[in-house]
Amino acid sequence: MIQTEDKHAHVLVSVDVVVLTLVERELNVVLVQRARAPFAGVWALPGGYIHADEDADAKASAARVLRTKAGMEGAYLEQLATFTGPARDPRGWSVAIAYCALIPLESLPTQRADLKVVPVHAVGQLPFDHAQILQAALARVRSKSQYSSLPVHFCGDAFTLPQLQQVYESILGESLNKVSFRRKMDEMQLLEPVPGALQGGGAHRPAQLYRVRPAFRQELALSTRGL
Amino acid sequence: MIQTEDKHAHVLVSVDVVVLTLVERELNVVLVQRARAPFAGVWALPGGYIHADEDADAKASAARVLRTKAGMEGAYLEQLATFTGPARDPRGWSVAIAYCALIPLESLPTQRADLKVVPVHAVGQLPFDHAQILQAALARVRSKSQYSSLPVHFCGDAFTLPQLQQVYESILGESLNKVSFRRKMDEMQLLEPVPGALQGGGAHRPAQLYRVRPAFRQELALSTRGL
Repeated sequence: MIQTEDKHAHVLVSVDVVVLTLVERELNVVLVQRARAPFAGVWALPGGYIHADEDADAKASAARVLRTKAGMEGAYLEQLATFTGPARDPRGWSVAIAYCALIPLESLPTQRADLKVVPVHAVGQLPFDHAQILQAALARVRSKSQYSSLPVHFCGDAFTLPQLQQVYESILGESLNKVSFRRKMDEMQLLEPVPGALQGGGAHRPAQLYRVRPAFRQELALSTRGL
Repeated sequence: MIQTEDKHAHVLVSVDVVVLTLVERELNVVLVQRARAPFAGVWALPGGYIHADEDADAKASAARVLRTKAGMEGAYLEQLATFTGPARDPRGWSVAIAYCALIPLESLPTQRADLKVVPVHAVGQLPFDHAQILQAALARVRSKSQYSSLPVHFCGDAFTLPQLQQVYESILGESLNKVSFRRKMDEMQLLEPVPGALQGGGAHRPAQLYRVRPAFRQELALSTRGL
């Protein structure tokens, strides 16, 4: 590759991914134990260099990092922000393109000793500027949950409307009115019933199971006004 | 600088800046004529490599690019998104950290033959993926203008409330109710009167001039609900 401005081009470029999931109504983040220096053995956000020879773009780099360093496939991924400067990585002036990933708890790998899931309030210190990246991801998810379909990516393939409402309430930290919640979901045209699928019964009337319409599995649906 | 993963680290990193201003109630973008290959002589967004030896972070790179390639100081700058991949730049796999800058028309340099201001609907083709970056900037500015102080950065140092309301209306493409607009401005605690400064008179009662409070000259004020 031709470097046209050699003295300026040597900047390290990586992706870092904040993987969030809900555990008992609480936001949790996935940390992996670093295999290599710097900070070998330390728990950190999964991250890695861009592989220009194989990655179609930085989002593909983030998906590859999740697959190879956390055994994770199919998480919803969106770009968060890019963190830069001479001090964030001891190896030199660096660029970290940060992504936010949302995944249902049941889709996380369970048998990896180098992976743990930690409530966000209990994370403690992180290497690099990962604490700052985590805070930015939490602010993004809480803010976007007010007017978009983002929280649906914490749910599995099929869920009831009360389950989805509880996911929204867990992130927003407040109770939502059932009628206006359902109106917002209708307005976004986010969901479709799973044909013939009902949950439960028991003492209650069985509840219809829903899934995300294909158009919104990788793109967000937006509400014109907040919840 | 130590390159720990040499085969992967060669990625070109630049910043590109979408500079927007309002001309007669219409969003305009600043283009500069490229001095060098690729696309020498072509009009494009101002951009340039990160200078790891002098830039404190990518935002400082963006400010330097505006100063050196467009003669522009003091624009409000915020990170937009990062555009990546093997095809966007003929020199190879590249990362462009895109920034959005807002500036009052009267703060633009006027004597540069290599700079022009173009209504956004009349831009036509742009090199690299600059058309896509411009569209992302327009979507961001229109969306954020619904619930933040962003449009105030199109105004000069002092302005009347009717002038500010007209700036919001120009971006949002709709008329706003005067009373609720003023309530939103109060709620954000965005403005302070310029002591003793009144505009005009003539046939009308003179209008109070306002300026942005220091806390919000580089940070946005947010409204809890849209305008």
